[in-house]
Amino acid sequence: MAKDLQCVLLLDCYGDLLTERQRELAELYYNEDLTLSEIADIQKISRQAVLDSLRHSEQMLRHAEEKLGMAQRIGKLRHCLEDILAAAQGQPDTETIRTLAQQGLELL
Amino acid sequence: MAKDLQCVLLLDCYGDLLTERQRELAELYYNEDLTLSEIADIQKISRQAVLDSLRHSEQMLRHAEEKLGMAQRIGKLRHCLEDILAAAQGQPDTETIRTLAQQGLELL
Repeated sequence: MAKDLQCVLLLDCYGDLLTERQRELAELYYNEDLTLSEIADIQKISRQAVLDSLRHSEQMLRHAEEKLGMAQRIGKLRHCLEDILAAAQGQPDTETIRTLAQQGLELL
Repeated sequence: MAKDLQCVLLLDCYGDLLTERQRELAELYYNEDLTLSEIADIQKISRQAVLDSLRHSEQMLRHAEEKLGMAQRIGKLRHCLEDILAAAQGQPDTETIRTLAQQGLELL
């Protein structure tokens, strides 16, 4: 299974739709960047069980995104706030704007 | 049933989780601001049927928000971008920042 970077964002948006167990495995894979075998070792389950759980979770996350499109919206907002920050950095007296843009990015 | 303004935001975030029919009634109520009786007349169903559908939809929308918290996140981002816009309006040479903040708000 190719590790899809978009899933990191989907997991952040929709992780609470997964069961605690599914989420735990998905976070080890996508956020901690462990391999399937490493997760299997830690969790004392088969590599196949890890794979099955991740496939199922990925399907659920993608389905949620198809329905709600939040990850795409958040990605665009991140670009927007990063561009504001970059524009403000080249300007004098924009400390308030820079602080606000930074706070906005922390929400994403 | 008191018309809850938070539901407008929840409907925007999670409306695609409702059936087409549920969404149609919810939009007439929350976005078009019609009364239960007006919706019942237009849709040629009973006022009670409208009420039942809206209650069910509201429950689903609130449940989605409890799980995902997107509406709250988006509300905070809106404040953040509005504050950036206000701060930029008092500053010279901030046209780029203002345009970006406006574009960000349009995503929300």
